Amino acid sequence: MHVRSDETGVDPAGGAQSVRVGIVGASGYSGEELVRLLLGHPLARLSVVTSRQYAGRTVAAVFPRFAGAPRARELVFSDPAVEGLARDCEVVFLALPHGVAAEFAAPLLEAGCRVIDLSADFRLRSAEVYREFYQHDHPAPGLLEDAVYGLPEVYREAIVKARLVASPGCYPTSILLPLIPLLRAGLVRPTGIIANSLSGVSGAGRKAEIPLLFVECNESLRPYGVPKHRHLSEIEQELSRAAGEAVTLQFTPHLVPVNRGILTTLYVDPVRTPADVTDGEALLEAVAKACDAAYGASPFVRVLGGSGLPDTKNVVGTNCLEFAWRLDPRTRRLLVMSAEDNLVKGASGQAVQSLNLMCGFPETAGLV
Amino acid sequence: MHVRSDETGVDPAGGAQSVRVGIVGASGYSGEELVRLLLGHPLARLSVVTSRQYAGRTVAAVFPRFAGAPRARELVFSDPAVEGLARDCEVVFLALPHGVAAEFAAPLLEAGCRVIDLSADFRLRSAEVYREFYQHDHPAPGLLEDAVYGLPEVYREAIVKARLVASPGCYPTSILLPLIPLLRAGLVRPTGIIANSLSGVSGAGRKAEIPLLFVECNESLRPYGVPKHRHLSEIEQELSRAAGEAVTLQFTPHLVPVNRGILTTLYVDPVRTPADVTDGEALLEAVAKACDAAYGASPFVRVLGGSGLPDTKNVVGTNCLEFAWRLDPRTRRLLVMSAEDNLVKGASGQAVQSLNLMCGFPETAGLV
Amino acid sequence: MHVRSDETGVDPAGGAQSVRVGIVGASGYSGEELVRLLLGHPLARLSVVTSRQYAGRTVAAVFPRFAGAPRARELVFSDPAVEGLARDCEVVFLALPHGVAAEFAAPLLEAGCRVIDLSADFRLRSAEVYREFYQHDHPAPGLLEDAVYGLPEVYREAIVKARLVASPGCYPTSILLPLIPLLRAGLVRPTGIIANSLSGVSGAGRKAEIPLLFVECNESLRPYGVPKHRHLSEIEQELSRAAGEAVTLQFTPHLVPVNRGILTTLYVDPVRTPADVTDGEALLEAVAKACDAAYGASPFVRVLGGSGLPDTKNVVGTNCLEFAWRLDPRTRRLLVMSAEDNLVKGASGQAVQSLNLMCGFPETAGLV
Amino acid sequence: MHVRSDETGVDPAGGAQSVRVGIVGASGYSGEELVRLLLGHPLARLSVVTSRQYAGRTVAAVFPRFAGAPRARELVFSDPAVEGLARDCEVVFLALPHGVAAEFAAPLLEAGCRVIDLSADFRLRSAEVYREFYQHDHPAPGLLEDAVYGLPEVYREAIVKARLVASPGCYPTSILLPLIPLLRAGLVRPTGIIANSLSGVSGAGRKAEIPLLFVECNESLRPYGVPKHRHLSEIEQELSRAAGEAVTLQFTPHLVPVNRGILTTLYVDPVRTPADVTDGEALLEAVAKACDAAYGASPFVRVLGGSGLPDTKNVVGTNCLEFAWRLDPRTRRLLVMSAEDNLVKGASGQAVQSLNLMCGFPETAGLV
Repeated sequence: MHVRSDETGVDPAGGAQSVRVGIVGASGYSGEELVRLLLGHPLARLSVVTSRQYAGRTVAAVFPRFAGAPRARELVFSDPAVEGLARDCEVVFLALPHGVAAEFAAPLLEAGCRVIDLSADFRLRSAEVYREFYQHDHPAPGLLEDAVYGLPEVYREAIVKARLVASPGCYPTSILLPLIPLLRAGLVRPTGIIANSLSGVSGAGRKAEIPLLFVECNESLRPYGVPKHRHLSEIEQELSRAAGEAVTLQFTPHLVPVNRGILTTLYVDPVRTPADVTDGEALLEAVAKACDAAYGASPFVRVLGGSGLPDTKNVVGTNCLEFAWRLDPRTRRLLVMSAEDNLVKGASGQAVQSLNLMCGFPETAGLV
Repeated sequence: MHVRSDETGVDPAGGAQSVRVGIVGASGYSGEELVRLLLGHPLARLSVVTSRQYAGRTVAAVFPRFAGAPRARELVFSDPAVEGLARDCEVVFLALPHGVAAEFAAPLLEAGCRVIDLSADFRLRSAEVYREFYQHDHPAPGLLEDAVYGLPEVYREAIVKARLVASPGCYPTSILLPLIPLLRAGLVRPTGIIANSLSGVSGAGRKAEIPLLFVECNESLRPYGVPKHRHLSEIEQELSRAAGEAVTLQFTPHLVPVNRGILTTLYVDPVRTPADVTDGEALLEAVAKACDAAYGASPFVRVLGGSGLPDTKNVVGTNCLEFAWRLDPRTRRLLVMSAEDNLVKGASGQAVQSLNLMCGFPETAGLV
Repeated sequence: MHVRSDETGVDPAGGAQSVRVGIVGASGYSGEELVRLLLGHPLARLSVVTSRQYAGRTVAAVFPRFAGAPRARELVFSDPAVEGLARDCEVVFLALPHGVAAEFAAPLLEAGCRVIDLSADFRLRSAEVYREFYQHDHPAPGLLEDAVYGLPEVYREAIVKARLVASPGCYPTSILLPLIPLLRAGLVRPTGIIANSLSGVSGAGRKAEIPLLFVECNESLRPYGVPKHRHLSEIEQELSRAAGEAVTLQFTPHLVPVNRGILTTLYVDPVRTPADVTDGEALLEAVAKACDAAYGASPFVRVLGGSGLPDTKNVVGTNCLEFAWRLDPRTRRLLVMSAEDNLVKGASGQAVQSLNLMCGFPETAGLV
Repeated sequence: MHVRSDETGVDPAGGAQSVRVGIVGASGYSGEELVRLLLGHPLARLSVVTSRQYAGRTVAAVFPRFAGAPRARELVFSDPAVEGLARDCEVVFLALPHGVAAEFAAPLLEAGCRVIDLSADFRLRSAEVYREFYQHDHPAPGLLEDAVYGLPEVYREAIVKARLVASPGCYPTSILLPLIPLLRAGLVRPTGIIANSLSGVSGAGRKAEIPLLFVECNESLRPYGVPKHRHLSEIEQELSRAAGEAVTLQFTPHLVPVNRGILTTLYVDPVRTPADVTDGEALLEAVAKACDAAYGASPFVRVLGGSGLPDTKNVVGTNCLEFAWRLDPRTRRLLVMSAEDNLVKGASGQAVQSLNLMCGFPETAGLV
């Protein structure tokens, strides 16, 4: 990261210098969470926040929960404008709907900013797949090649050097992190995978819609978006890269009455179906070895393995994803279960993790 | 039902006469729900409720929400005693832990009562399978042959004549009703079936345990009991009867923060994998036909088919189970999703439905 | 009630005959609850339901939870039209916003229907007070004199004969029922009364507004509408009638994350401040006597007195209000605490209770 | 604070040095929250955590949500023992039941530790009042004189020098902070004050009791502990100190279904009842002035004044208390409404705030 030292403020410990960052579209839940994380980040200075809806009001006025932070009381929401962002920020986060994000990414990159996009606009490598799943032409296909899929545990080196990071969605993160090591190691079959996910209501966004009202969600459990949810496209793309062959996934999201959290239960078939207990144990050892190799040095992935089970309340408010597995001796299938906070590891925390990598900061800076 | 007319009270419309019923173990959530349903039942008179814990107190004092019912203000909890039950009841509901229920069933049957057991004690036809899943010898194996599995939509005729009904558990009901017609019609494979279930916390019972505290469950999503939940045994037994061959099921229960409700998502493979759209449509037609044939006349099963999706809030407080399906053209798998109230259709309402059949009452009497 | 026997259907027991009823504006939470209650009412036939939004769809399609009722599957929402309502209904419920309700009431009364209005339009006896609190002129001041305030426990006789019933709001019911006997008996002072109320989110209506979203309400506790909530006007009117002098009330509503329920805590001063324990006991006896006299014969008011405390979970889903009191020996103030279901006793159940009185039905018909 | 520099580790910025702290009784909700805050504290090192129940297990094993912190993975729960605490800690937090805390405080003070007690044991200055409210003799009356009531905004100087801090309870904090400036300034009467409080369920502690189960609390609103809650004693003591005369408070706590948060609504009478609008405005100005003077420099008190209303979701997870007020022109009473996180500002955050003062750290260190 080319940090211009004369502009980026103090450097308290003689080490990494702070970076000026901006957020475009800070009025939704992901944007709000980005504000929270960046206000508390020791090496980032939140320089610009934009929101048409809130323009002219301070961050503290719009989000009273942040009013304890001095910066929140002085920083004023502005209308989104590329010029101001380019002038005042080295890195810009886009927390915008798909289709809109691309309109900002191109000129910001042009102006020399680095961009971390939380929308789906740059997650797919193929403009055709984008059109199939999002029902409109890709707004900036020329940028797809440059974009790096922002899953730090998988693409750490590429993110370090990236100018445009496509930060993954919440469902994909909960599925990809547990499965990629198993597919890469050839331990499970790339066919027949099922992902059954439960999501808290913040995953649906801050939208004034009847089905998202308290009374409609509380005491309600429901599947939705079956059988072809948009996130499928990026999940299959990344699973296929890990497997080295095309993966078709069965994915069923459900809405459940919690504010935050995703719990995903994965059903996969071992490549060599274990014939007996000894075989099963060998498989479990190989699984543990692959996951430890993948995540042993990762501060935000907790491998529970065969003991313990994930619970969203263990990860909510943190950037951690935890996952466990069990081999079912009766069906010889492998169950893999993961939990994460959809707004942190599933969105804004992961984006800040990419920021840290891009700027040469400790990966955990500003994150717990 | 041999109703002794001199004892069973008024017969307002010259039709079915009322029946005197008792509940053993009315202090848990299922027992409380039975109390609610039977207090409001037009053709049943709640004659005895037992609970060691509450003996000597009126139903209204223990459960203030029922205090509006005159009968709740006069009926007093007693210690469980076979003699009193046999004298004052024609039908006795057992809402007891497994193992204990059988101790009451035998003498009550001996004394001429008919028994509807909500525990797992008589659901399995094999004492060996019982021992495998419940880790103790079956307490009354001689009664297993007589017991009828109390799923009215499947075993209606047998229930009408039964002396001992083993009323199904909440998870089994949510899985069996959607799958049995498909297996019977040979439309889906008996292998590879996956059931992913979400349950409200009342499903865990009224137990003073830390993991069931409000603060531990609220804002928490978690799997449990994997990979070998006890209910698997009765589910596989009944699926196998429907399929005509042994079925091994993958079953994953999850605890989610609602009071009531089970949402089950089933993944099944069509027998003839649809090769194209036409094939897929033929399959869906056959599925619809099988389900309509099975449940067209059933007041408590709502077949949503390919339109609409289940939501527990549509069934909570009712004895209805609703289910929908989708064929995923990408994986060629069939998704079947069901919703029910775990305490009504999944427990006490279903037991009352069996009572209605046993007594010649309208199947919907006292139920909505 | 002039029930035309040739049209109102069967009369199974030779007693009360059924009445044809309609609901105008059945798409909100109160309207939906009215639908539920009237579908299950043994002596009412739901003939018309109107909703601009849902016109043309069956009740079962709009509200799947009622699909178990045969009538819900055949009854189709229509656009609201006075002619059709007048032709097909003897009693019409208005579940409309204030200001709009009056537009329907006048022509329906003209056409010979009896009207039960759930809005605030006819609750106030003074058009001036209406203008002060609702900020527009009263749309039909000529009807105010005829309207009966629909609190059955207080105005039973007037309701029996009423052509137009103004069914009370949820907050007023929770405050009036506990206080009226105390004020009538002259036991507490009409000055200085404080009502601190907690309401479930359904009390705010089914409105697509950000502050009512699940994520905004869950894990949130907040006051609102202070210090001058609209419901104050009808509460003060009725307290003043009971006291025989003008009462000014301090009323603070709060929004809390439950679907249903109102919990009100009232702070009142005894007229004769008890000087010692003996005095205090005499006061408590007089309070008990006044409440028993007022509600001893009322099926839907549960006087808990000095033992037990109200809990909304004991009344949710029922038409009961329960209340308790304590004399604080330290402050010599009387605490009175009440609980009700805001949609049943606080709205639609109470309206059905008025229907029962108007039609000569048992007061509890169709209600629990 | 006598920090021994050779033992307390690094001093990265040449400023304040870190302090070694311990927690006795870290298994309840307050203890767990203390663990969270101290693991993240930049100037404290969590040296000892004790819990009979968890002895021998790491903090990360007991509380998986903290497993991301390296210290949580190495620190092992031990049995509580004064010697070890005295050897390894300079400051010890007691998160124990009342009565038990005092047993640890005395020997720890003797051994030279400073003690921050989160129980009620040292909050009262009078052993007689303690006996009246806690029904047993005070276990260490000799220490009462030394103890400082740990409300930093009120007793900042005393806390700086204190050896024993009695950290206030959650209800008291929510009542005292808004009222003390008004009483001190003589703006409101010390008589007739009412505090109506709503508390999340974590306030009741991590106890395996039926009334605290999810199903019993969810969809439930209920008062409890009326009319004489134990916390009254310390609230009245502190209000009396502020008023300069004896204050008797009416206090009604309610349990509502959120994990965290207290919302308190206070009803107070102005000393000079405002006769008209001008008078009312003068009163409001005086109130604003008093509150600004009291809290203008306090980082954790947010004075919303006459605009805005508190909402627990704005403060949950933070050490902030926010409060607003309204003058009701109709009753001439002043409403004051406050919100806080019962486990942070109402317990553990406030205790850490005292730690910061005692050690000469920035008051906000480790807190947001």
